[in-house]
Amino acid sequence: MKIFTNLDLTDTHRKRLRSIAGRHDIYFADPEASGDGAESAFLESEVAFGSCPPEWLSKAHRLRWLQLDSVGFDRYLHLDWSGALQHITCTNLHGFFAEAVSESVLAGILALYRGIDECARLRLRRLWKKLEIRPRLRLLSDARALLVGYGSIGKRLSFLVGAFGCHVAVYDQARLAGALSTPRELDRALPGIDLVCCALPDTPGTRNLFDRRRIGLLKPGAILVNVGRGTLLDEEALADALESGRLGGAVLDVTREEPLPPDSRLWACPNVILTQHTAGGFSEEVDGKITFFERNLERYLRNEPLESAVDFARGY
Amino acid sequence: MKIFTNLDLTDTHRKRLRSIAGRHDIYFADPEASGDGAESAFLESEVAFGSCPPEWLSKAHRLRWLQLDSVGFDRYLHLDWSGALQHITCTNLHGFFAEAVSESVLAGILALYRGIDECARLRLRRLWKKLEIRPRLRLLSDARALLVGYGSIGKRLSFLVGAFGCHVAVYDQARLAGALSTPRELDRALPGIDLVCCALPDTPGTRNLFDRRRIGLLKPGAILVNVGRGTLLDEEALADALESGRLGGAVLDVTREEPLPPDSRLWACPNVILTQHTAGGFSEEVDGKITFFERNLERYLRNEPLESAVDFARGY
Repeated sequence: MKIFTNLDLTDTHRKRLRSIAGRHDIYFADPEASGDGAESAFLESEVAFGSCPPEWLSKAHRLRWLQLDSVGFDRYLHLDWSGALQHITCTNLHGFFAEAVSESVLAGILALYRGIDECARLRLRRLWKKLEIRPRLRLLSDARALLVGYGSIGKRLSFLVGAFGCHVAVYDQARLAGALSTPRELDRALPGIDLVCCALPDTPGTRNLFDRRRIGLLKPGAILVNVGRGTLLDEEALADALESGRLGGAVLDVTREEPLPPDSRLWACPNVILTQHTAGGFSEEVDGKITFFERNLERYLRNEPLESAVDFARGY
Repeated sequence: MKIFTNLDLTDTHRKRLRSIAGRHDIYFADPEASGDGAESAFLESEVAFGSCPPEWLSKAHRLRWLQLDSVGFDRYLHLDWSGALQHITCTNLHGFFAEAVSESVLAGILALYRGIDECARLRLRRLWKKLEIRPRLRLLSDARALLVGYGSIGKRLSFLVGAFGCHVAVYDQARLAGALSTPRELDRALPGIDLVCCALPDTPGTRNLFDRRRIGLLKPGAILVNVGRGTLLDEEALADALESGRLGGAVLDVTREEPLPPDSRLWACPNVILTQHTAGGFSEEVDGKITFFERNLERYLRNEPLESAVDFARGY
């Protein structure tokens, strides 16, 4: 059996993957490569671990399993998974980034609530502003949080902001017990919420969920967090709300265009924390992905159902 | 009965305090004033709410109760509380800042672990460094935390870092069950700890607890947090450890001199978060202090024991 991977790996990682592959051949492609060598190795493989150009898949007649190295799979959504690609099972890293992303969300919110962002800037100018800062600081305890999306990140966030004493509400269209589930319920709730944390995939239903009208419904002083996909919100409307001081801040891990273009207004908006799509990152990230793949490979070799198979019909 | 206060108050606060004082006279002094008017009003008062110059106390023969507007009382430690001042009960704001300080500690640690401090600086230069940042980020879950001091802040911190999944140890000389209690036990534990969070008062026993030798025992990459008093640590040794990269960072709310002098090395050390003695602050801080005073005043008027009486013999 041939295994293909195009992850960005150190020699230690490669050694570990070779040992995991055992008697099976493993081909290491350059992560950025889309040239002939990588493509033909991909087309000969039964298993692939990484993210490939979507156009390779329609030609990959030998491929049985694609393990993505991400949670998102927007790039592959348009393909014919229930037809031409039905011989391929696609799995993602569902849940893998929940802890890291949740910690980055708390880091961003607390930076705004507790003045860390402001103190970082004051430090560069060696300015001590203690008495000016103190009365502006806020407490997470007793704040009202709304988790928009209740997947693995939403669940972990719910626990963490709950530990700080936040009142937690959930919006999720899956109609969970106790959760808000219609756009109308969302609209009604927003004016009473201090922290809106969005962790949603990019689907037709989530695109522009926070358009100008809905951003206008946010409570004055509220903080909007987006760690899902940049397509969720109207960046011009958000910049207006931040610049006017109506919103208390924003924590954005994702933007419509990445890298964020140098001329984007978001760079200079007050009280914006731009985490540059790093929220899922951590020092043992690649090792963790390899462990995820290893466990699924064991299932694959035993002909067992794979963990985290993507349901393309459902869209997430 | 005459009540003296020198808190920094808005008109609304004054109105509220007048209503709390009821039929008793209340004198509002300028918070910075130490002149004759404020002093003679103080000397005529039975109750004082705020922090007065220590030298006033020996002359304050009518004073029965001093409600400090802080937790710390280092300024009053040298006075003869069991002799000449034994007619005065001094109460502090024990526990009042625990939530705010704990949230600032988490904000500071998470800013270092999750790259918020770095992203804040990159934003000023409109630089997108996603792939360089990600592998350096750390997770709080599974980190080993040591809480040095287990008062109201240590207890709240224990709960919060525990919620993130940290392994929590405690050092407190009060010999609590399960806690490290001797300097030798502290020394032995330090090399295995990722996060050392100090929340101790300024007493002869806590001064220079983290001297150069003990800072040298910290685990490479560890983060040192100090939200107690600046006298706890050797700032030159800390600056050396940060500049050499041996330490992972420091979160300092307090420094030996405040405001931190413009020529202090700490301003420019890598991975230092200086929160400028704001950790206890929050927008409803003054209102909360007034509520604390109000409850104690009710006890005072009913001749009941006051809440949070300071034990000067014990030193905290």
